[in-house]
Amino acid sequence: MKLNIALLAGDGIGPEVINEAVKVSDAIAKKFNHEITWTPALTGACAIDAVGVPYPDETHEICMKADAVLFGAIGHPKYDNDPSAPVRPEQGLLLMRKKLGLFANVRPTFTFPSLIDNSPLKRERIEGTDLVFLRELTGGIYFGEKGRKDGGETAFDNCVYTRAEVQRLAKKGFELAMTRSKKLCCVDKANVLETSRLWRETVQAMEKDYPEVTVSYEFVDAVAMRLVQWPNSYDVLITENLFGDILTDEASVISGSMGLMPSASVGEHTSLYEPIHGSYPQATGLNIANPLATILSAAMMFEDAFGLKAEADAIRAVVNKSLSEGVVTEDLASKGAKAYKTSEVGDWLVANL
Amino acid sequence: MKLNIALLAGDGIGPEVINEAVKVSDAIAKKFNHEITWTPALTGACAIDAVGVPYPDETHEICMKADAVLFGAIGHPKYDNDPSAPVRPEQGLLLMRKKLGLFANVRPTFTFPSLIDNSPLKRERIEGTDLVFLRELTGGIYFGEKGRKDGGETAFDNCVYTRAEVQRLAKKGFELAMTRSKKLCCVDKANVLETSRLWRETVQAMEKDYPEVTVSYEFVDAVAMRLVQWPNSYDVLITENLFGDILTDEASVISGSMGLMPSASVGEHTSLYEPIHGSYPQATGLNIANPLATILSAAMMFEDAFGLKAEADAIRAVVNKSLSEGVVTEDLASKGAKAYKTSEVGDWLVANL
Ligand SMILES: CC(C)[C@H](C(=O)O)[C@@H](O)C(=O)O
Ligand SMILES: CC(C)[C@H](C(=O)O)[C@@H](O)C(=O)O
Repeated sequence: MKLNIALLAGDGIGPEVINEAVKVSDAIAKKFNHEITWTPALTGACAIDAVGVPYPDETHEICMKADAVLFGAIGHPKYDNDPSAPVRPEQGLLLMRKKLGLFANVRPTFTFPSLIDNSPLKRERIEGTDLVFLRELTGGIYFGEKGRKDGGETAFDNCVYTRAEVQRLAKKGFELAMTRSKKLCCVDKANVLETSRLWRETVQAMEKDYPEVTVSYEFVDAVAMRLVQWPNSYDVLITENLFGDILTDEASVISGSMGLMPSASVGEHTSLYEPIHGSYPQATGLNIANPLATILSAAMMFEDAFGLKAEADAIRAVVNKSLSEGVVTEDLASKGAKAYKTSEVGDWLVANL
Repeated sequence: MKLNIALLAGDGIGPEVINEAVKVSDAIAKKFNHEITWTPALTGACAIDAVGVPYPDETHEICMKADAVLFGAIGHPKYDNDPSAPVRPEQGLLLMRKKLGLFANVRPTFTFPSLIDNSPLKRERIEGTDLVFLRELTGGIYFGEKGRKDGGETAFDNCVYTRAEVQRLAKKGFELAMTRSKKLCCVDKANVLETSRLWRETVQAMEKDYPEVTVSYEFVDAVAMRLVQWPNSYDVLITENLFGDILTDEASVISGSMGLMPSASVGEHTSLYEPIHGSYPQATGLNIANPLATILSAAMMFEDAFGLKAEADAIRAVVNKSLSEGVVTEDLASKGAKAYKTSEVGDWLVANL
């Protein structure tokens, strides 16, 4: 199979972790007889530095032509102190999501037996956790009209959803639930927000098309609690953009394996795969960042974008092996044990595929 | 001192836990030579049943005339399945907050040494946690314009803040920080929302008036993570209404003592004290609900509404004593130990004051 992949390394440790994901993907492709064409493109702070905007048109064209996008991380401390600066890396991210129509962010949270004690939660609380958030990614308060009135003294952000937007996200949620334990939780704040009431009534109306799926409706504040108390009681959760931002991040730390969590953003024109961690600027160039989340994102890409499940499973298997044999970067190395470099982990995975 | 207190017992277990708080407050008043006048009033589902609205005008008048309001809990399962029902208990809550001008919700999260093992978090993560959220309670997306367009196919909720609203909440935050460890965290989403940028610039401009306070600015998603990872790294946090709803609930479960957490809502006309737990309908009338959060809310009332710190400390001391001697309701009773009834806990506290 010919795989045409846009490669957006981004900022900070992005290029280093992407490098290892490319190594491992190329090795898998070789083994399974595929041919990958990687087309690199700029995004984030490095794009601002090079061409003045965080998501250049050229990058967009490359993404649109590709079968899938593999993404590293963006963000640079020089943009951190002033969230109102006119040009910022995050704007590139939002523009990219919107222009690529990436309306569903798929964020699994699961545990690795060998890492369970890294969780801030007690073992009995976290064990067995295996949930997936589907976060709506191109609507809501992120993209509604926003601005100032009264000479700058009043600010507003409008949250808007259409029924069609809810339906296409919820459809993915029902479909995903059908491939898993058939439990779907719709997270909203329908006791206060009109957009949430639209979410809830839309999902309720879809229930009849998926009679096997058991749907529950929970308020966002209740979910924020239960995620800490009994994360293993959830399976598939669907939610709007801002709630998803907060809850997926909350969920990511409970596993104790945040540095390992992959994600996908899927949509109309293409799909994008990225680790959930950030650009970790302090570690830039040190060859110490953990590449596993990016490598597991590549695995998601093989499975979901190309339907290559065996390839994805081969990547996951060798990642599990590296974890149980302690071939890990310093963030995961046990006390006194050797910490491997970013590139050493990639090399080991390739050698052990 | 004469203390004129409105008593809003509410629904479910509300009346039972309020009853014990009244007992303990009366005993304290007697001991310290105060005279409390309690004026009961209806709110919540019971008010809907009695007079058709969840926050009757008469209740509002009673609250306005009182020096403080002690509140139980509201909510009834018959209103749970349809968040778009025309009359709902929550509307009473929102109306009450707005009409009483209760713009700052004060939500402490702290630990009790004897209960630390109830936390879903590991001991080393939760130990020493002592933080307070100040949640803005009468603005933002809760109270902005909301509705439908396009024949119901599009829903919107507008989030609005004025600089003055941010200032009065932030002022309370700075003042509270001055009485504690002088650390203030402003929680926002200034990389995406205009209202958050207004929050941030307003708080930044106030920093010079409180040179001793160290202010940090964190995005809401980052706080949702760090609250689980290192809750003991926070002190005072200020935030807008919706973020506060989600984060205060998340914070409340990490302590393992949710059933014990008090809260205050302070504002222009009066202040209101209530446990953070809900109306727990399944336990209604069983005399098993834990009254301590309500009793500790009464302690907050003595201290903050009336400046009666010795009285508040006396309540807290006897509550601590009940905890360490195991005079607790079934939610806190250790395996095999006797579980006390709601009223027995109240009686014991009065006897041991
Ligand atoms: C950087 C920021 C704009 C972004 C978001 O809020 O969507 C990030 O937090 C994320 O979740 O991908
Ligand atoms: C019941 C609901 C409207 C309310 C809120 O969202 O403010 C509750 O969750 C709270 O936090 O007091």
